[in-house]
Amino acid sequence: MRAAWIEGGRVELRELAVPRLRAGEALVRIHCAGICNTDLELLAGYYGFRGVPGHEFTGTVVQGSRKWLGRRVVGEINAGCGRCARCTKGMQKHCPRRRVLGILGQPGVLAEFAAVPEENLHAAPRALTDREAVFCEPLAAACEILEQVRIPPGERAAVLGDGKLGLLCAQALAAAGARVTVFGRHPGRANWLARLGIRLLCGEKRPAHAFRFVVEATGSAQGLNEALHLVMPLGTVILKSTIHEPLQTDLSKLVVVPEVTLVGSRCGPFKPALRLLRRRQVATAPLIQAELPLEDVEKAFRLAAEPGALKVLVWCSPPDASNAR
Amino acid sequence: MRAAWIEGGRVELRELAVPRLRAGEALVRIHCAGICNTDLELLAGYYGFRGVPGHEFTGTVVQGSRKWLGRRVVGEINAGCGRCARCTKGMQKHCPRRRVLGILGQPGVLAEFAAVPEENLHAAPRALTDREAVFCEPLAAACEILEQVRIPPGERAAVLGDGKLGLLCAQALAAAGARVTVFGRHPGRANWLARLGIRLLCGEKRPAHAFRFVVEATGSAQGLNEALHLVMPLGTVILKSTIHEPLQTDLSKLVVVPEVTLVGSRCGPFKPALRLLRRRQVATAPLIQAELPLEDVEKAFRLAAEPGALKVLVWCSPPDASNAR
Repeated sequence: MRAAWIEGGRVELRELAVPRLRAGEALVRIHCAGICNTDLELLAGYYGFRGVPGHEFTGTVVQGSRKWLGRRVVGEINAGCGRCARCTKGMQKHCPRRRVLGILGQPGVLAEFAAVPEENLHAAPRALTDREAVFCEPLAAACEILEQVRIPPGERAAVLGDGKLGLLCAQALAAAGARVTVFGRHPGRANWLARLGIRLLCGEKRPAHAFRFVVEATGSAQGLNEALHLVMPLGTVILKSTIHEPLQTDLSKLVVVPEVTLVGSRCGPFKPALRLLRRRQVATAPLIQAELPLEDVEKAFRLAAEPGALKVLVWCSPPDASNAR
Repeated sequence: MRAAWIEGGRVELRELAVPRLRAGEALVRIHCAGICNTDLELLAGYYGFRGVPGHEFTGTVVQGSRKWLGRRVVGEINAGCGRCARCTKGMQKHCPRRRVLGILGQPGVLAEFAAVPEENLHAAPRALTDREAVFCEPLAAACEILEQVRIPPGERAAVLGDGKLGLLCAQALAAAGARVTVFGRHPGRANWLARLGIRLLCGEKRPAHAFRFVVEATGSAQGLNEALHLVMPLGTVILKSTIHEPLQTDLSKLVVVPEVTLVGSRCGPFKPALRLLRRRQVATAPLIQAELPLEDVEKAFRLAAEPGALKVLVWCSPPDASNAR
C-alpha cells in the first residue's frame, strides 16, 4: 500500500506492507485524513518520530469483527495497555505504555490502510460526508474543554487563536451556550463566524482581565501570556497549544495572586463531537484549506505548514476506489 | 507609636503617628504579629514597598464601633473599594483598587497600633492564646486550597516544602481527611508531623507522577517543575509560592499532554482556619522559630530570613502593657 512516511525532517510517499493486525484491531481502508499541527511537529522532529503519521480519519473497516466489518468509521487515537492502574481506572489515554495512532507506537492514517483498535472505533453517521466526519477527532479535542470546565450558558469566553483548533474550540463553546470572542489574525474569517454568533477581533487592543474563561489555542509560545492578560482573577485558562519551547511567565503575579486556574487539555470524547457535527452546530467547510490525493502528501504538508493555513485534507483511498492494495 | 518601617532594602524601628481611621475602620492595639515570606519580599524590594509591613496579627480593638470595642481580634487583609464590579460580586480580594494590610496602600501590623476595616475583623476565640491565634491568617491561606479543590477523604496528597506555609497546608489537608506526604529538607520536623498522621520525606528519590493533588509551597523557582514531576495525569497542582523570577517549564509535555490543572491560590477564609485552631487540629507551637519584642524587629527579620526558618513572632504591644501611645 502507499503511505506517507516521515523521517529526518522530510515526508515522502512510500510503498509499505499493509499493517498486520494485533488482537482487537480492525483494518481500516482510509478515505480521508486530516493534517494536524501535531503532524507538523512530528515532521519538525519532536518526539524523534519516524514512520507513518496521521490520526484524523474516516474510513471503512475491511477486516475485523462482524460488528465492524464494512462499516464507515472514525476513531479515537489513544490505546492503553489495558492492564495498568491507569487503564483499569478509565484513564487509558494517560496510560504510560499507551500507543497513539500516528504519533507513538502505532502507524498512522496517512496511508491507504491503517490498523485501529476496534474499541476506539465509532460509526460515522450516514448524514455526514467524509469531509465532515474527518473533523470528529479535532472537534473532540475542542469538546474536551467542556468535560473539564463548566461554562455557564451565556457566560463570555475568549478563544485566543483563529487557526483550525481555535475555530473548533470557539464553535464547541458557542454550541454549549457561551458568548464567544475569538482573538485572531484573519479578519476574513469574521463573516462565517458571525453567522454562528461568534465575534472575531483582529488587531484591536485587547481588554485586560475581562474573561472568566480563556482558551489558549494560538500554537505560539506567547499564547500563555496573552491568555493571562485576558483572563480575570479567579478565572480559568484552558491550554490547548502544545508548544515545545520552554515557556516564560510571571506565575506569581499572573496566576497565584489572581488565583487563576490553568487547565491542560488534549484529546476528547467523540460522542459529543459527532452529535455537534450531525446537528450541524459546527461548520467545517470554512475550515478546509485544501484537499489533495495521497500521492501529493508532500505538497499537502507544505500547504498545511504555511502561516494561517487551515485544515488540509488528504484523500488516501476514496470510498469509490477499487479494493486494490 | 513605635512601628517597623521598610525602605530601601532595610527595616528599622521608627516613631510614627498612630494611624487615623477611615470610615468603617477600627484601631487595633497589636499584641502579636507574624513575619511572613511576603514581608521578606517587601524588604527585598518587590512591589517597591515603603512603609509599615505586617499582616498577621492578634490585637484588641481600642477605637471603633460598639460591636468591636474592647474585643480581641484577628483580621483579614484585603479591603476592596466596595463599589466596582468585582467587589459587588463578592470578589473584594481581587478588587483592582484593593488595599492590602501591610502590603498595598494600608500600613501594616508590625506596629503598636494599626487601622483595620471592621468588616475584616473576626473575634479571636477565648480558647486560643495570641501565639496560636496569630496563625489564623496563614492557616486561612492554607484552607483556601480546600475552597478551590475537592480532595476526597483518604486521597493521597503531596505538599512540596516543609517551611511554615507548607506545614500549615499539610495540616489543613490532613485535617480534611487527605493522606499527606510532605517533601522537605528538615528531617527534624518528622516526629511531630507523624503524630498528626503526616509523613515527611527528605532526600529520598521522589515517586514520578504518583499524586492526584500536589501543593507547591517551596517558595523556590524550581518548585513548579518538582510539583509537575510528582503529579499524575489529570491531577492538580495548587500553587502557593509567590516567586518573582520568571518560571521556565515545558508546559506542553508536563501540563497539556497529561491534562494537569494548575490552581493559583492566595489568601483564604478565616472561619475554617479558626475552627481548626479551636479544635486543636493544627499544631502551631512547632512552627514558632523565635519570639521577639517590637524593638528587635530588625533582628526578627534577620532570623525570619535564615534558610529553614519557621515563623518569627513579634510582640508589639502585649495585652498587659499600659495603654500609652
